[in-house]
Amino acid sequence: MSELVGNCLIGQSGGPTAVINASLAGAITEALNHSCIEEVYGCLNGVLGILNEDLIDLAAESQQTIRALRHTPGAALGTCRFKLKRPADFERVLQVFEAHNIRFFYYAGGNDSQDTAARISSLARERGYDLRVIGIPKTIDNDLVTTDHCPGYGSVIKFLCTTVREMACDHEAMGQNDLVSIVECMGRNAGWIAAGASLAKRRDHPHDPPHLIYLPEVPFTPEKFLEDVQRVLKRERYCMVVVGEGLLDPDGNYVATSSAQTDSFGHAQLGGAGDYLRGLVESRLGLKARVARFGIAQRAAAHAASKADADEAFHAGEAAVRASVNGETDKMVLLLRGDADTYQCETGLAPLEEIANGVKRIPREWINEDGVSMNYQFSRYALPLIQGEVQVPYENGLPQYARLDNHRVDRVLAAHEF
Amino acid sequence: MSELVGNCLIGQSGGPTAVINASLAGAITEALNHSCIEEVYGCLNGVLGILNEDLIDLAAESQQTIRALRHTPGAALGTCRFKLKRPADFERVLQVFEAHNIRFFYYAGGNDSQDTAARISSLARERGYDLRVIGIPKTIDNDLVTTDHCPGYGSVIKFLCTTVREMACDHEAMGQNDLVSIVECMGRNAGWIAAGASLAKRRDHPHDPPHLIYLPEVPFTPEKFLEDVQRVLKRERYCMVVVGEGLLDPDGNYVATSSAQTDSFGHAQLGGAGDYLRGLVESRLGLKARVARFGIAQRAAAHAASKADADEAFHAGEAAVRASVNGETDKMVLLLRGDADTYQCETGLAPLEEIANGVKRIPREWINEDGVSMNYQFSRYALPLIQGEVQVPYENGLPQYARLDNHRVDRVLAAHEF
Repeated sequence: MSELVGNCLIGQSGGPTAVINASLAGAITEALNHSCIEEVYGCLNGVLGILNEDLIDLAAESQQTIRALRHTPGAALGTCRFKLKRPADFERVLQVFEAHNIRFFYYAGGNDSQDTAARISSLARERGYDLRVIGIPKTIDNDLVTTDHCPGYGSVIKFLCTTVREMACDHEAMGQNDLVSIVECMGRNAGWIAAGASLAKRRDHPHDPPHLIYLPEVPFTPEKFLEDVQRVLKRERYCMVVVGEGLLDPDGNYVATSSAQTDSFGHAQLGGAGDYLRGLVESRLGLKARVARFGIAQRAAAHAASKADADEAFHAGEAAVRASVNGETDKMVLLLRGDADTYQCETGLAPLEEIANGVKRIPREWINEDGVSMNYQFSRYALPLIQGEVQVPYENGLPQYARLDNHRVDRVLAAHEF
Repeated sequence: MSELVGNCLIGQSGGPTAVINASLAGAITEALNHSCIEEVYGCLNGVLGILNEDLIDLAAESQQTIRALRHTPGAALGTCRFKLKRPADFERVLQVFEAHNIRFFYYAGGNDSQDTAARISSLARERGYDLRVIGIPKTIDNDLVTTDHCPGYGSVIKFLCTTVREMACDHEAMGQNDLVSIVECMGRNAGWIAAGASLAKRRDHPHDPPHLIYLPEVPFTPEKFLEDVQRVLKRERYCMVVVGEGLLDPDGNYVATSSAQTDSFGHAQLGGAGDYLRGLVESRLGLKARVARFGIAQRAAAHAASKADADEAFHAGEAAVRASVNGETDKMVLLLRGDADTYQCETGLAPLEEIANGVKRIPREWINEDGVSMNYQFSRYALPLIQGEVQVPYENGLPQYARLDNHRVDRVLAAHEF
């Protein structure tokens, strides 16, 4: 049992998901179980909220709000893509932690965010400030290393599969032939999301879409793509293509970028892979193509979220608090599955430095020889992640989502200079 | 009570919706209640199935399949956009009807389809062939005249509002300012769908999105649009724009067409209004814009369908059969609302010729002075249409949708020459 006593701080970072608030709810709920945690604070907009001393008292929120976080998309605390770089920024973080006696810090995010958490922890250690830092995994991209999968992934692919299955009903109904229907989904460095759409195929229904899946793990060439489409259209009345936004050519360059901009981590801002494929189909094959692009709606689709995913996200939040109270630090919570035939998810821990900046790609042996479909190994991996439906409360015909009341913690420091 | 005895034929036409199969289920269910209706047939792919004598025996389908049609998107019989033009085609329809003793014909579709139904009926009358023809309204566009609203509309706007509300959670979470988020929705001639997204705003939450709605009913100019966006961004951290694909400039031309193609009815095939607005924002304001384009997924989103809509679609199918048995012909079923304070939907009838080729636009007085938002008259109209949630059965994490077994009716005629 920990002898460290003080306040805890929870932050959310990076792109929101359908279940990052479930992790927040899990962390808050567990924090209230431990007397060594005196106050339960949240920082608004990730590390930016620490720098700005924008802290709120999460224990003051109503219980019904915390319960509703379990089905609320977005990120209730707000997130940021701000990267701590300047030594003065790191110093400021420690100043704010000291000023508010923050001794437990939980940060939900992807690999960049875990890197940030690791750096904060390392500075605290250097300065002899007793602090326990635990990361909570979060990314629809499912590309964090060491964890079996990431909270947020199951829900995004459940929504995509639902939609692919519905689009299939629509396409099958139309009398027209040779329609190419393209679904563009997210996924910057890895094709996990596009691959997940393969679960929409019913077992023993080989004609079900998606017919072709393009992943960044398999170098893309227009020639192969056009052959693939023509091969499918010999067999089917329409061809449904799922493509991840981060498609790469054989030289490792993105085949389509919507603009030359990069975000503050230096990542190219992508988009347009669907329109790029559409252009190929229309100009080279003279066929009609349509593109559906769900944008951020796919990662926010809480109304179609996976219960397994939401529950695991909640447990990941709980596990982070428990680990810190048990004396762990500099770790990220992992979701692990047992070896049993039936899926069971347990939590584990791995050093933050192992997670920071690593990228997990889909094993090549899970992709069929044709490069455009997934095999049973992938299905066995992904199917448990979409099980169960989150019951969202509806009022007046629409889902009701929670907002925090944001009870501000009084500032005690001067404003930070950026 | 009708003295006409014979078989009935049900067809589906035009773009599928989330609830056109509910109308099919209603018609089949009701047809089985009337002894004057001997066989219950369906034609595959609308009038094309009549020409090809592609008929199926709907009474041979299992009861569980018919029940599952009430939540299955697409169009289980298949649809077409084929327009009957040649006299030989109309003659063929009558030949097929005679060959299979079709005396009751129900056609679910939009205004083009109701026009087709009227022409078939008129030829039958001319030839002294006793036939009763009743149209069943269907269109997500909600632009049929005389009916208060159309089956399919409530579900598409419920899905869009759900998504807009979820995207709002996501946008609110992101620390970035000045994001312009554009949602492109369907709607060729009228802005009903885009207008419906206004229901996503919570009552007494003026900052809720959508912030700007662009409808074909209000002529579009880039200058006004850019002013609108800048006005919103002075007040809000992000600006969510909903735009219908059929946006018109002051001369009545589409502001964006993705290609020069027209469909077989001569309608321009649209798309790209969202990307057009994005281009304006990026090039003229230097701001970042993102486009979500749901394509046909919006009209197929049965997992998020309106129960009011699905139930009314079912009742419309029932009402069509009842009307024909009661001796009515050349009519389309209407959905009508009473004058009471609480919404109640009843069915009625109007002559097919009144519906064919008419287009109902949004009354100008339901659009606010600013041209980009809807007032309480619109909400009062649309809110009842999205009430209730259709319970879709899930298996293995995904919705289960029905397919017909397609028990073929034996052909008795030679093949039709097109």
